[in-house]
Amino acid sequence: MSARRMKIGCAGLGRMGKRHALNFLERTPRAELVAASSPDPAELEWAKTHLVPFGVKLYQNYDDMLKHEGLEAIVVASATAVHAEQAIKAIEADKHVLCEKPLSTSVEVSQSVVDAAAKKPNLKVMCGFSRRFDKSYRDAYSKMQAGLIGAPSVLRSQTCDKLDPSGFFVAYAQFSGGIFVDCSIHDIDLTLWFFGAESKVKSVSAVGITAVEPDLRKHNDRDNAVGLVEFHDGRIAYFYASRMMAAGQEDTTEIIGTKGKLAVNTQPAMNHVNLFDDTGIRREIPQTYWDRFEYAFVTEANEFAAAVLDNKPLPLELTAAVQAVRIGAALQESLITGQKIFFDEQGNRIEAARL
Amino acid sequence: MSARRMKIGCAGLGRMGKRHALNFLERTPRAELVAASSPDPAELEWAKTHLVPFGVKLYQNYDDMLKHEGLEAIVVASATAVHAEQAIKAIEADKHVLCEKPLSTSVEVSQSVVDAAAKKPNLKVMCGFSRRFDKSYRDAYSKMQAGLIGAPSVLRSQTCDKLDPSGFFVAYAQFSGGIFVDCSIHDIDLTLWFFGAESKVKSVSAVGITAVEPDLRKHNDRDNAVGLVEFHDGRIAYFYASRMMAAGQEDTTEIIGTKGKLAVNTQPAMNHVNLFDDTGIRREIPQTYWDRFEYAFVTEANEFAAAVLDNKPLPLELTAAVQAVRIGAALQESLITGQKIFFDEQGNRIEAARL
Amino acid sequence: MSARRMKIGCAGLGRMGKRHALNFLERTPRAELVAASSPDPAELEWAKTHLVPFGVKLYQNYDDMLKHEGLEAIVVASATAVHAEQAIKAIEADKHVLCEKPLSTSVEVSQSVVDAAAKKPNLKVMCGFSRRFDKSYRDAYSKMQAGLIGAPSVLRSQTCDKLDPSGFFVAYAQFSGGIFVDCSIHDIDLTLWFFGAESKVKSVSAVGITAVEPDLRKHNDRDNAVGLVEFHDGRIAYFYASRMMAAGQEDTTEIIGTKGKLAVNTQPAMNHVNLFDDTGIRREIPQTYWDRFEYAFVTEANEFAAAVLDNKPLPLELTAAVQAVRIGAALQESLITGQKIFFDEQGNRIEAARL
Amino acid sequence: MSARRMKIGCAGLGRMGKRHALNFLERTPRAELVAASSPDPAELEWAKTHLVPFGVKLYQNYDDMLKHEGLEAIVVASATAVHAEQAIKAIEADKHVLCEKPLSTSVEVSQSVVDAAAKKPNLKVMCGFSRRFDKSYRDAYSKMQAGLIGAPSVLRSQTCDKLDPSGFFVAYAQFSGGIFVDCSIHDIDLTLWFFGAESKVKSVSAVGITAVEPDLRKHNDRDNAVGLVEFHDGRIAYFYASRMMAAGQEDTTEIIGTKGKLAVNTQPAMNHVNLFDDTGIRREIPQTYWDRFEYAFVTEANEFAAAVLDNKPLPLELTAAVQAVRIGAALQESLITGQKIFFDEQGNRIEAARL
Repeated sequence: MSARRMKIGCAGLGRMGKRHALNFLERTPRAELVAASSPDPAELEWAKTHLVPFGVKLYQNYDDMLKHEGLEAIVVASATAVHAEQAIKAIEADKHVLCEKPLSTSVEVSQSVVDAAAKKPNLKVMCGFSRRFDKSYRDAYSKMQAGLIGAPSVLRSQTCDKLDPSGFFVAYAQFSGGIFVDCSIHDIDLTLWFFGAESKVKSVSAVGITAVEPDLRKHNDRDNAVGLVEFHDGRIAYFYASRMMAAGQEDTTEIIGTKGKLAVNTQPAMNHVNLFDDTGIRREIPQTYWDRFEYAFVTEANEFAAAVLDNKPLPLELTAAVQAVRIGAALQESLITGQKIFFDEQGNRIEAARL
Repeated sequence: MSARRMKIGCAGLGRMGKRHALNFLERTPRAELVAASSPDPAELEWAKTHLVPFGVKLYQNYDDMLKHEGLEAIVVASATAVHAEQAIKAIEADKHVLCEKPLSTSVEVSQSVVDAAAKKPNLKVMCGFSRRFDKSYRDAYSKMQAGLIGAPSVLRSQTCDKLDPSGFFVAYAQFSGGIFVDCSIHDIDLTLWFFGAESKVKSVSAVGITAVEPDLRKHNDRDNAVGLVEFHDGRIAYFYASRMMAAGQEDTTEIIGTKGKLAVNTQPAMNHVNLFDDTGIRREIPQTYWDRFEYAFVTEANEFAAAVLDNKPLPLELTAAVQAVRIGAALQESLITGQKIFFDEQGNRIEAARL
Repeated sequence: MSARRMKIGCAGLGRMGKRHALNFLERTPRAELVAASSPDPAELEWAKTHLVPFGVKLYQNYDDMLKHEGLEAIVVASATAVHAEQAIKAIEADKHVLCEKPLSTSVEVSQSVVDAAAKKPNLKVMCGFSRRFDKSYRDAYSKMQAGLIGAPSVLRSQTCDKLDPSGFFVAYAQFSGGIFVDCSIHDIDLTLWFFGAESKVKSVSAVGITAVEPDLRKHNDRDNAVGLVEFHDGRIAYFYASRMMAAGQEDTTEIIGTKGKLAVNTQPAMNHVNLFDDTGIRREIPQTYWDRFEYAFVTEANEFAAAVLDNKPLPLELTAAVQAVRIGAALQESLITGQKIFFDEQGNRIEAARL
Repeated sequence: MSARRMKIGCAGLGRMGKRHALNFLERTPRAELVAASSPDPAELEWAKTHLVPFGVKLYQNYDDMLKHEGLEAIVVASATAVHAEQAIKAIEADKHVLCEKPLSTSVEVSQSVVDAAAKKPNLKVMCGFSRRFDKSYRDAYSKMQAGLIGAPSVLRSQTCDKLDPSGFFVAYAQFSGGIFVDCSIHDIDLTLWFFGAESKVKSVSAVGITAVEPDLRKHNDRDNAVGLVEFHDGRIAYFYASRMMAAGQEDTTEIIGTKGKLAVNTQPAMNHVNLFDDTGIRREIPQTYWDRFEYAFVTEANEFAAAVLDNKPLPLELTAAVQAVRIGAALQESLITGQKIFFDEQGNRIEAARL
C-alpha cells in the first residue's frame, strides 16, 4: 500500500457537503482534502473554522476550484440541481468524481453524466448510493450470494424519515423530484443490486397520500407512498416511503428468496441500550439517515480513494444510477396520475391497451 | 353468569373441523359440543375416538344434525365450497352460526349469507376472522383507539405461509379463490377493522409471481403476490401474501399513524427460547397459522358462546366478511389481468378511462 | 383415551386457590372439580358465584372435604403454612395430591410429606413447580437433552417481581421463608432439573440489600438478593431475586454449556406488539408471575390428571421439592449471616475451618 | 479548535499495539503517530509496511523512543507485565500517557503508577477502560444520571469471550492475573463508574469451574467464574466471566435501580441482519472484544488527544484503575481459596471471625 494520498476537493458545503468534507479530511487516511467550494457565505464561514486550519483552500467558484494545482478528484455534494453539471465539468477537467445521489431528478440529465464519463474511461466516476457501503447490507448481499436464501424473488424496502415538524420538506419537494426519486431511490438501487442490473422493469404502479402535509400536493408530491415494481424475469419489489415516522429513521429491507429471507433492520435500534421502566421496555432508534448510515459514508469515501489510487474497479456501476432514476420517476408519475405504467423488455413504455 | 351451556354441533371434521370440535368440547366452558357431522368415513372414525366417548353424537348428514334435539348453534368448519350453504341452512333452522372464513370465495354467495341472517335478527351469525381474537391484535387495536399513533393512515399486512414442499397448495388453489382471497383475506379484514368499515375502496392493483410453483398458473394463482389498496378517505393499505416462507408462518402487520406506529409480530418468535451456538443466536417461529393463532380460536369460541347465551352483540359484523371478499376478489382479478381496478365512492367499478 | 374424569377437590380459595379451582373446572377436560374448601367467608362467597353453579360442593372444613364421596385427588392451594399438613392428610386419606410450592419453608416438614407419600406408592403426589410445565423451559430442556449446548455447566436464573407499591410483601415476608425460599425456589428447581437431581451442593453464599423496603429486615429478609451455588460435580448456578422490577415480571434463565447457551426470556414480551412513538420503540412485559406462566399451570393440571387416570409417572419427582427447599433455606441463612456455607458430598454441613 | 496535533508514540506492536498505532495514525485527526517501539522483529517488520511509509519512526528500544524529538505522549500497549514500568518511565520523561488496562495485575504496582502521576499534575495519565468510551454504555450512564431508573442498586455485568479452541488462553493465564483481573476488570470498572468511586467494598466471594480447560488450574485460574461484591452503602454487584462462549463475545450489563433498569447488550447483534431459514431466525454477534468495542477505542484515542491538547480533565480518574485491580484480585483470591473476604469501610481486610 502506497502512502500517496488522493487530493480531493469538495463541491458544496451544505448539510451533506460538510459531512463529505470532514470525512475526506479526517476519516479517509488515503485522501487529502485540499479544496472546497461554495457560493454561500455562511458555508464558507463554517469552512474557515473547520477546514482552513487543516490546509484546505476555499473557493467561491466551483470552476476555479477545478483548476486547483494537483487536484485529482471531486466529491460533488452540492444541491441536486447542479450535481450533473458539476460532475460533467469535473470529468471534462479530468478529475475523478464521487457524486451524491441522485445524479439528477431527470433521466436524460442523469444519462448525460454517464455519457460524459464514457468518454474518459480512465476516470473513476461513481454515484454515492450510501447503503451499498453499509455493513449490514453488505452482509445480507454476501449471504444471498452464498445461496443462503435460494433465488431472490421478492424485495420489500422502505426509506422512512422521521417527521420534521418544521414542514421543511414541503419547500424541499419543489426540487427533490418527489418522494420516490428522493427517498425510494435508495430502495430502487438496492433492488438493482440484489436482483442484478439485468432485471428489466415490466410495470410500475403507485399510490400515495398526504396524511400530515396537504401542501405537498402543490408540488405533485405525497408524504406517504407505496410503489410496486414488476420485473420481466419474474420478480417483484415493493417500496414504502414516508415523511412522518414518529420514532426516527426507519430504513428496512427484506429480500425473500425461495429458500429463506434476509431482513435488514426489521428491529431498528440506535445502540445496545434498553430501558425498562413502568411503561415497558424501550429502545431508541436513529433519528436521521446520517445517524443510521454515518459509517457507510466513511467506507464510501475510503473505497472511492482506494479505487482511484490503486486503479481498481469502483464498487458500483454508474449506469445503475440512471436506471434507478428511471424507475423512481416512473413510480412518481404513477403516484400522481394514478395509472399503472408498462414497459417492454427493451425498456420502452407500452400502452396498457396494447397488453 | 349462568351455568347453562350452549349446545353446539360441528359441521365438518377436516383439519379445521377437528380443531373447532375439540375447542368446543374442551376449551369452551360455556358450550357443550353435542353433535358433529361429516360425510367422510375417515373423519367419522377419528370422531369415534375423540368425540363420541364424551357424549358427542355423530351424523353423516349435515341436514340430519340440524334436527338434533336441543341443538342451538352450529360451527361451520367444512370445505369453503359449502360454507355458505350450510350457514344458510343453519340460519333457516334457527341456529346461531359461527362460520369459518371465508363465507364464500364469491361476493354474491357471501352476500346471500348476510341476507339470510338479516331475516333472523335474533340469531348470532359470525364469520370467524380469527385474528380479531388474538391478544396482540386486540392490544394494538386498543392502543390505536387510545390515540397512541394519531390518525391511522397506512397499513401494511402480510399472511405468509411456510413452504409446503408437498405442493398440496397447488391442488388447493383450484377452490381457494386464489392467494388474495385465501391468505390476504385476513389482512383485508384487519384493514377494515383498523380503518373502520366506512373506509371505501378507491382502487386496487396487484402483481404476483410463481417463484416455486409454476403450476399455480393453471388455477390463475401465484405463490407470491403484493396488492395495493387505496381508500377514498385518503388511506392506503398494502398486502403481501406468500406460500414459500422458509422459517415458518410470518403474519405481520404494521399500522402507521400520524403520531406513531403499531407493529404486530415484526419480530416473530415461537416461544421465549434463544439458542446461542457457533452460528449465532437463533430462535424458532410458529410453523403454521394454527401454531400462531391457536388461542385466538379458543377466544373466538368462548366469545361466540357468550354472545349467544347472554344475547350480547357479536365482536364483529357479518357484513365485513362480504366486504373483505369483495376486496380480495378484486385484488385477485388485478393480479391476473395486470390491470388496476377503480371504484367510485358507492363501490361501483369505474373505467380507468373515465377517471 | 378413556372419557373418565378425575374427581378433584381444591383446598384453599385465595389468590392461587381460585386459579387452580378454575383451571380444574374449565381447562382440564379429564378432571372434574367436585369440591372446594376454605375457612374464609369471602372466599366461600366468591365460590358460590363461580364454582357452585357448576356443581362444585363447598366445605368450610378441609377434613370434611376429604370425605367427599368419590373424591380422588386434592390440589393443595392454601397458605404455605398448611401445605404440608393438608398434603399429608390427603395422602393418608388415599387421595392423589398436587401441592403448590413450596411443600413447606422448613426442610424437615417438607421431608415429612415425602415420607408420607413413600408409604403410599400407588398415589401420585407432586409439588407444582410451574416452570417445569412452561413451553419455553421445556423447549430449552429438550434442546439441552439433544446435546445442542454440549455439557451444561453454568446456570443463571432469576425470579424478579414487579414492585408492589402497597408494600404487601413486607407482611408476607413473615411467613414466606424469605426471598430465596419464596422466589428463587423456582430457579433452584430449574437448576436441579437442568443439572440433574444427582448434582450435590458444595457451597452456597448470598448477599442482599433492602433498596426499597427496609422493614423487610425485621423479618430477616431483603428485597434484592444474589446467591451463588457451587456443586461437587463442577458446575455452578447463580440466582437473582428481586421485589422491585419496574416494568413487570422478569423471570429469566440461561443455561450455559460447553458448546452453546440456551436463553429463556432474555427478551421479555407480553405479546407481539411494539409501539413506535417519539420515545422510541416500546413493548410491554407480563406484570405478574401468573401473566407469564398462566398456561404452564393449565398444563400442570392436565398432566397431573393424566398421570392419575392413566397411572403414568409424574413429570417431576417429589424429592426434588425437598432438595430445593434445602438449598433455598441455606441461601437465605447465608444472606442473613453473611457467611458462606459448605456441604460435603453427602449433604452434611462442614465448617469452613475444616476445608 | 487548533490544528496542532499531539505527537504520540506507541509502545508495543502486538495485537493491541497494532490497533492503537493504527487508530492514532488514521482515526485520530488531532494526533500524529510519530514513533513506535517493539523489541519483536516480526512486529517491527509489520510496522515497516504499515507505519513507516506514513512517517512513523521505529525503535527497538522503548527508552530510545522516549527521547524522540518533540514526542508529547505515549500509548502503552505492550504486555501487561511492563505496563507500569513503561508508564512510569514516560511520566518521568514528561510524556502524557494512555495505558492499556490493567496498569498491573498487582495492586501495589498499579498504585506506583498513580503515585508517579501524582508528582506530575500537569500530565494527562489515563488507564484505557474502553467500555467507558462505548456509545451504549455512555447512553446508559447518562440515562441513569438523568434519574430514569431511580437509585442504582444492583449491577450485573459479564465479560464472556468466545471459546478459543487453540487453548491459547491457558498459556496466557500465567500472566493475566486470572479471569477476574483480566476479564471482569471491565465489569468492575463499570461498577465503580455507575455506582461512583465512593462505593466501598464490604465483601467479595467467588466460585468458578474449569468446564473446558482443566489445565487452567495449574495457573490458579478457571474458565468460568461468578463473583459477588457487596458495598458498604447497600449496593451489590455480581459478575460472570467466561472463556467458552459459543456464539461470540457476550459482554452484557444491567443496572437495576429502584425505578427502572438499564440493560446494555442483553440482545447482542453484530449488525442489522437477520437470516430466516428452515432453522428459524438467526443473527450473528461480534466474535471478539475488538469487534464489539472497536469504535470505543477510536473515541478513547480522540478524547485522550483532546484532553492533552486542550488541557481538559480526562474522562476517567487514574485511581479507579487501582481500585478495580484491588477488587479483581480479591475476587480471584476468593475464587481460588473458596473463602469469602471481608473489608471494613477504610478498605482494610477483616477476619470473618471478627464480624
